[in-house]
Amino acid sequence: MKVFVPEEIGFCFGVRRALQLVEDELRKGGRIYSLGDLIHNPQVVEELRRKGIKTVGELSQIREGTVIIRSHGVNPSLIEEARERGLKVVDTTCPYVLKAQRTANLLVQNSYAVVVVGLREHPEVQGIIGNAQSGKIYVIKNSQEVEKLPFMKKVGVVVQTTETLDNFEDIVKNLIKKTEECRVFNTICKVIMRRRALVRELARKVEAMVVVGGRNSANTRQLVEMCRSIGVDTYFIERKEDLKLKELKGIERIGIIGGTSTPEQTIKEIRDELLSLDQSHNSFKINIHHS
Amino acid sequence: MKVFVPEEIGFCFGVRRALQLVEDELRKGGRIYSLGDLIHNPQVVEELRRKGIKTVGELSQIREGTVIIRSHGVNPSLIEEARERGLKVVDTTCPYVLKAQRTANLLVQNSYAVVVVGLREHPEVQGIIGNAQSGKIYVIKNSQEVEKLPFMKKVGVVVQTTETLDNFEDIVKNLIKKTEECRVFNTICKVIMRRRALVRELARKVEAMVVVGGRNSANTRQLVEMCRSIGVDTYFIERKEDLKLKELKGIERIGIIGGTSTPEQTIKEIRDELLSLDQSHNSFKINIHHS
Repeated sequence: MKVFVPEEIGFCFGVRRALQLVEDELRKGGRIYSLGDLIHNPQVVEELRRKGIKTVGELSQIREGTVIIRSHGVNPSLIEEARERGLKVVDTTCPYVLKAQRTANLLVQNSYAVVVVGLREHPEVQGIIGNAQSGKIYVIKNSQEVEKLPFMKKVGVVVQTTETLDNFEDIVKNLIKKTEECRVFNTICKVIMRRRALVRELARKVEAMVVVGGRNSANTRQLVEMCRSIGVDTYFIERKEDLKLKELKGIERIGIIGGTSTPEQTIKEIRDELLSLDQSHNSFKINIHHS
Repeated sequence: MKVFVPEEIGFCFGVRRALQLVEDELRKGGRIYSLGDLIHNPQVVEELRRKGIKTVGELSQIREGTVIIRSHGVNPSLIEEARERGLKVVDTTCPYVLKAQRTANLLVQNSYAVVVVGLREHPEVQGIIGNAQSGKIYVIKNSQEVEKLPFMKKVGVVVQTTETLDNFEDIVKNLIKKTEECRVFNTICKVIMRRRALVRELARKVEAMVVVGGRNSANTRQLVEMCRSIGVDTYFIERKEDLKLKELKGIERIGIIGGTSTPEQTIKEIRDELLSLDQSHNSFKINIHHS
């Protein structure tokens, strides 16, 4: 069996940064709370819990100590409220998410209606909306939904960082006829764009793909969908233990990839597990360059 | 034979306005020159010539009197030069064209690269370019050409007023991945958009379409292309005399339409000519509403 693992796997810099900030805080001691799961990976969240980070759903559950704002960002009013209540705030909002938030805010300040492309219920979209509260804001997830929008003289568009370029492009294409001025900000995460291009290329070279990551991770789920749409056998797992080794026997060429909140270590464990399947094992690092 | 003529035919308000300004000038007397044909309709230009309007290709050909800037607009430096040379300037630039010009200028002032969607050699595009001289400007005519563009952090897009929405949308869709911010101004003429929607509907109801207008009129040529792509027999003529009546005998339902620089009178003459073909003649005005 030949196992292909891209050079660039594991956490994106936004997730690495968030975890680093949390580790720094852990060293300082005190009670530390995460407002929602820090990242969309149950195993990492469980490890943080063991280290003393407690996940809470509401700010009201925290009486004292430090509150971690996760990389997806939040409504800025929440940060204000936490500070007013005397809590220490460690804000790990991803710089790409922050840019989408600030752009939405700037658009509202300049009298643009704002269209957010993404899923209304996703915490990142909720944070973007929170940053543009005083304006007209529409969240849409596909180009069919554009039809429901009114005519807007000036509209600005931002996009959830994990959105696919294809869907974003289709939405903008359909939005143009509904506006005089349409100001489009491509806030899709560059790391995710690159990883998708890499996975697209890898999936075409192999018989099967193992995609590793949290079931609740938007960007991991999209990698799974992409692989399946290419037509390659695709296994979506969270941990090494989820591997169905029997099903994989006899496969000659297999690829492994993770989402941006999947630890590199998990990928490597899975690679080793696959390599243990037969004696003529081989692992290849592949590096695919994309702009 | 049933002949269908839309309610809204003839000149658009930009062309009507240009002709009115020229008529006003004619009443005042003096030598009057048009810098290029006033509109893209040889018959109208010929009539203006008989009234005393001389068409010249270059400003240097005019020694004294009035120079008419046609509805397509020009490079603003030309207007300046004309005034410096002591000529009276009557500027009939269409308000829609003026908006595209001013937008391109504003974009350059705000450090945007500018993409003009349209035909480089068209006078309107030349005028837009002239209004954005100090900046980075790219003229592209289709989405394939987007591939040749460099990555641009901030790009603004304006579009030739006679461009089709489909082509414009495809270009913007492809441009998005090449930019961080893409500020799109839909400067396509609303009259032309409405007329296209009307012709699309009419062409599906009839056996043949007669499209009337100058061979050099971009918006008339597009109506012809649209009818042909719908699959209806389409006759592209400039004047009543171009009608091949023999070919049209036996047709039960026929539609007539003109471009925005085609006189209503020409359409009516053609209608009457068609109605003379048989005794059971009938003419229908149709009115199709589109937003």
